[in-house]
Amino acid sequence: MIKVGFIGLGVMGSPMAGHILENGYPLYINTRTREKAEALIEKGAIWCRNAKEVAENADCVITIVGFPKDVEKVYLSEDGLAEGAKDGSIFIDMSTTEPSLEIAINKELKKKGAHLVDAPVSGGDVGARNGTLSIMAGGRREDFDKILPILSTMGKNIVYTGEIGSGQHTKMANQIVIAGTMIGVSEALVYGKKAGLDLDTMVSTIAKGAAGCWTLDNLAPRVIKGDFDPGFMIDHFIKDMKIAIYESRAMGLNLPGLRLVEDLYEKLSEEGYGRNGTQALVKAIEELAKDKG
Amino acid sequence: MIKVGFIGLGVMGSPMAGHILENGYPLYINTRTREKAEALIEKGAIWCRNAKEVAENADCVITIVGFPKDVEKVYLSEDGLAEGAKDGSIFIDMSTTEPSLEIAINKELKKKGAHLVDAPVSGGDVGARNGTLSIMAGGRREDFDKILPILSTMGKNIVYTGEIGSGQHTKMANQIVIAGTMIGVSEALVYGKKAGLDLDTMVSTIAKGAAGCWTLDNLAPRVIKGDFDPGFMIDHFIKDMKIAIYESRAMGLNLPGLRLVEDLYEKLSEEGYGRNGTQALVKAIEELAKDKG
Repeated sequence: MIKVGFIGLGVMGSPMAGHILENGYPLYINTRTREKAEALIEKGAIWCRNAKEVAENADCVITIVGFPKDVEKVYLSEDGLAEGAKDGSIFIDMSTTEPSLEIAINKELKKKGAHLVDAPVSGGDVGARNGTLSIMAGGRREDFDKILPILSTMGKNIVYTGEIGSGQHTKMANQIVIAGTMIGVSEALVYGKKAGLDLDTMVSTIAKGAAGCWTLDNLAPRVIKGDFDPGFMIDHFIKDMKIAIYESRAMGLNLPGLRLVEDLYEKLSEEGYGRNGTQALVKAIEELAKDKG
Repeated sequence: MIKVGFIGLGVMGSPMAGHILENGYPLYINTRTREKAEALIEKGAIWCRNAKEVAENADCVITIVGFPKDVEKVYLSEDGLAEGAKDGSIFIDMSTTEPSLEIAINKELKKKGAHLVDAPVSGGDVGARNGTLSIMAGGRREDFDKILPILSTMGKNIVYTGEIGSGQHTKMANQIVIAGTMIGVSEALVYGKKAGLDLDTMVSTIAKGAAGCWTLDNLAPRVIKGDFDPGFMIDHFIKDMKIAIYESRAMGLNLPGLRLVEDLYEKLSEEGYGRNGTQALVKAIEELAKDKG
């Protein structure tokens, strides 16, 4: 059976690695904090001293870490994955990171005869636990076909998006749309509240027509109840939007809606709301009203 | 049977008045351009010389005209509806207009013992023709209950939203959400195109998750095909957004997303795209890239 490596055992990575192990794959792991690996080691995962050692042992290595700088470090630093990469190995980066970084990493891996698939996910920790993540995967089609059984242990809606980087680009497009739905729904809720509308009636009325969106169906009811617990955390959304802004600028684009929303979220984060859910954007709109008044 | 008056026989009003007539209500009509009334007169509608005469003859008068100034004129000018209003009459304004104007008109009508219901619609000319409009109605509950059979000849999803003005406020909330989904989807499409993504794959992939929205399902495919025919015309959307901005400012709110989107659409209108569909917002985002490059 194909030997799998896994690096990054956070709130997403731990259950994802667990699914791979449960499906009978030999699993080689490494992560910054060894304690996070103990539960998997007890179930049979093999600890490696560093990323390089993971790459030396496994035929397919999955990474899911935090920021672009972490992705870069895991792959390109001393004792990193690229150093240990074998001819024919496939690497899968499931972090959300810069498409241009994936292209650069792929170039390094190719020197060893290995290839990268960039495969960011959506669906959050619930999707990771239940094995129901959506996965957007870019890279060589033949590599995608080879790793599909492994991806299938972690996700349900798995799409091949095209060449290397296209998975991340698709994820960015996803986050750009969400930035728009978040500002629209947040401003409508603040408007409706100020206008004295019954917000439940307002939401149920407009959700059926051209204003209908996932955010209205799923986050507006939470806002109305005053529930700002994170489904998706503001600080994580800011990270993604910064990547999208960086990439869009690199391509010569100016996306004023995305920039506006990112700016509002950054202010919220500075005020201490970074660990709230993204629905807390209403607080930024409410504060703008106060500034004016 | 209750006598109905109808003023405003445009692309929306004509089929709406037709449905009322077909359901057996005596129908008194007046409109700026008499030729637009001929078809209804042939089917039995009774022509009145002015709005006042419509109000004198009917027990329930429906109006659907263009801009807030047209609404004001029909109700409050010389020979207008308020002059002819009878004790106990119910007026229904189905135009999209300023909530505060509806409140002012209602105040005038009350001097005669009459009342207003503000009942803007969504669903466009297709909904008007098929009698499947969504109707958001504010005013006295007893008046809403009385006119529900009449509204039911024109619409399917008819919601009582609360006191006078709340129908318009609900419509504004609807347009504010749409402003957000439009900018999000437009920026994502421009980003995806520039990134070289297959846009059909991109849209179908992200439409299933948290980015899902009516705009992505219905307008993104049109943009991809280069189809900018109006489902909803840019100039009409601008009119609605201007009302929402006016009302939000009057309430002390600052809605930066709405203002940004309205501004982009105004530039498009100035460049001659005013009769395009709202999906042409992508053209504004593409032009921003050119400015930069």
